[in-house]
Amino acid sequence: MKIQAPYLLFLGDASDNLSIKMAKGVADWRPQLCTGQFRLDGCSVTTGQPDMSIAQAKQAGAKTFVLGFANSGGTIDNQWIPFIVEALNNGFDIVSGLHDKLTDIPQIKQLADQLDLQLIDIRHPQQKFKTGTGEPRIGKRLITVGTDCSVGKMYTSLSLEKAMKQRGLAVDFRATGQCGILIAGNGVAIDCVVADFIAGASESLSPANDPAHWDIIEGQGSLFHPAFAGVSLGLLHGAQADAIVVCHAINRESMRGIKNRALPSIADTIALNVAAARVTNPQAQVVGITLNTSSVSESEALEICHTLTLELGLPCIDPIRHGVDAIIDKLCLEY
Amino acid sequence: MKIQAPYLLFLGDASDNLSIKMAKGVADWRPQLCTGQFRLDGCSVTTGQPDMSIAQAKQAGAKTFVLGFANSGGTIDNQWIPFIVEALNNGFDIVSGLHDKLTDIPQIKQLADQLDLQLIDIRHPQQKFKTGTGEPRIGKRLITVGTDCSVGKMYTSLSLEKAMKQRGLAVDFRATGQCGILIAGNGVAIDCVVADFIAGASESLSPANDPAHWDIIEGQGSLFHPAFAGVSLGLLHGAQADAIVVCHAINRESMRGIKNRALPSIADTIALNVAAARVTNPQAQVVGITLNTSSVSESEALEICHTLTLELGLPCIDPIRHGVDAIIDKLCLEY
Repeated sequence: MKIQAPYLLFLGDASDNLSIKMAKGVADWRPQLCTGQFRLDGCSVTTGQPDMSIAQAKQAGAKTFVLGFANSGGTIDNQWIPFIVEALNNGFDIVSGLHDKLTDIPQIKQLADQLDLQLIDIRHPQQKFKTGTGEPRIGKRLITVGTDCSVGKMYTSLSLEKAMKQRGLAVDFRATGQCGILIAGNGVAIDCVVADFIAGASESLSPANDPAHWDIIEGQGSLFHPAFAGVSLGLLHGAQADAIVVCHAINRESMRGIKNRALPSIADTIALNVAAARVTNPQAQVVGITLNTSSVSESEALEICHTLTLELGLPCIDPIRHGVDAIIDKLCLEY
Repeated sequence: MKIQAPYLLFLGDASDNLSIKMAKGVADWRPQLCTGQFRLDGCSVTTGQPDMSIAQAKQAGAKTFVLGFANSGGTIDNQWIPFIVEALNNGFDIVSGLHDKLTDIPQIKQLADQLDLQLIDIRHPQQKFKTGTGEPRIGKRLITVGTDCSVGKMYTSLSLEKAMKQRGLAVDFRATGQCGILIAGNGVAIDCVVADFIAGASESLSPANDPAHWDIIEGQGSLFHPAFAGVSLGLLHGAQADAIVVCHAINRESMRGIKNRALPSIADTIALNVAAARVTNPQAQVVGITLNTSSVSESEALEICHTLTLELGLPCIDPIRHGVDAIIDKLCLEY
């Protein structure tokens, strides 16, 4: 599976920024992959990309029509089908990150087959994976892990990739979630893999590479999350990370989707992730902490990061407010 | 899915005891569920059940034809199809624990549909699972965990269930692998669930029950196994175990399927499993150790168990050689 760029981002009638996270992610991180956005009446949010119709996007060279919105059930409503059909008739591949599969809709499947166009359900991996081997691979690897889900692991990973590229390092972002896959153009939705193959899929995601090359692997979930820790652990084992960055959102009262469950401490998160990572890479260590500090002022954010830096002996920054240079300095020094 | 007993165990032309593990498991643990075994020329192993043809088994009341053998690829060879067809024509449901699906073979699928008989691919869960919630459930739960794969977790679980039943305790064995599912008549092949739902599937496997009721949950893999730890962790979190039994095979040089990788120590296995289990049950503790001591003499086995009992302060036994009473005594005393 290879997603053809550039993309037309279809936002439907979305009215909430969270629901267009996937479209916004790619527009923020890979604007060069986007031709524009296609919005319907009632849509009140934007990715910042220029508005255009399907026909205009085709004229402008777009190749893939991206369902850039999500709803809570992950369903493909019947109301979107005419737009998908129009996009296919204009020669677009279709990408969906919804739970429902494009390929399960007979009308769409038939038309795509007939026109020889791709239907890419990025939440449903089509590769065949092997079980993990634990065998070391050449190349350097960094993985982002979290105290919780949705604490900035993808954002941190992409920030690191960008800054490392700017320093001239050989580096690739390795995507493990739907938004990341759209940004990278490939990857594995690791939480959709059959359980037996989590670590094996993770191993295949960052294959052997040049000794100086870095893979920056997007983490998922949290070893402390009662629903998703199995995914996090298999991904961590398969990654064989040399370096770990711990991500955390401050002032969050409860773990995502779980009532009355406090987040683990950063220190506990470091300890458990290092212990687990060393099962497949005895040299694994944490090289930095990133915080989402959007709930506090600039000065409070600085103070929190400074205190944690001293307390943990590791660079602690908010990647949006402070950049990730402190972490990359440490990486360049120690690896 | 409910597997109808009694079973006819089909061994094909198997010549190796390991390859009929599934058939042997059910014959050993639930002989009352078996009518007999059906062997072809060249089959040199036995479950101990009486030999009979498909027609004889039908006469004797058997309801389900079990593919009781495995091969390394998990494939259904064409040579077995005539026997499956004969079984269907005799009114049997078919159970397979192979990776290949019965339902993917058009001839078999059509015939089963036509005759309204079940094709049960126990390695392919058909239920829809939810993601885990971490919410406590009433009832008591014990899970077996391992230093490695194939160290006796199912055997230990079934030994505990049997001995607890003999003491009049309310107890159920909860199966998580293909052999266990055949023995229990239901369960979830947890390593075949989509990664996102491991913990949720595990939660559904041992639902709320009477406060005094015990679920004995069959563990899978090992938190230290580089291929399967994600499965083990999700299962452990979903189980919300009050009690953990650690299983180990002595004198094993390397983790199953992984070259040059020593097994973790029992002490490390206790520590990591307790820490992980406490994410969803803060009262979780280890109540005993079971060893597969088949590689040493009776007296050596006793000495090893005695030494470990003193060293770890926990009952340590080989369930085959010594029974599991020491562990159940502790359970009854402390819960």
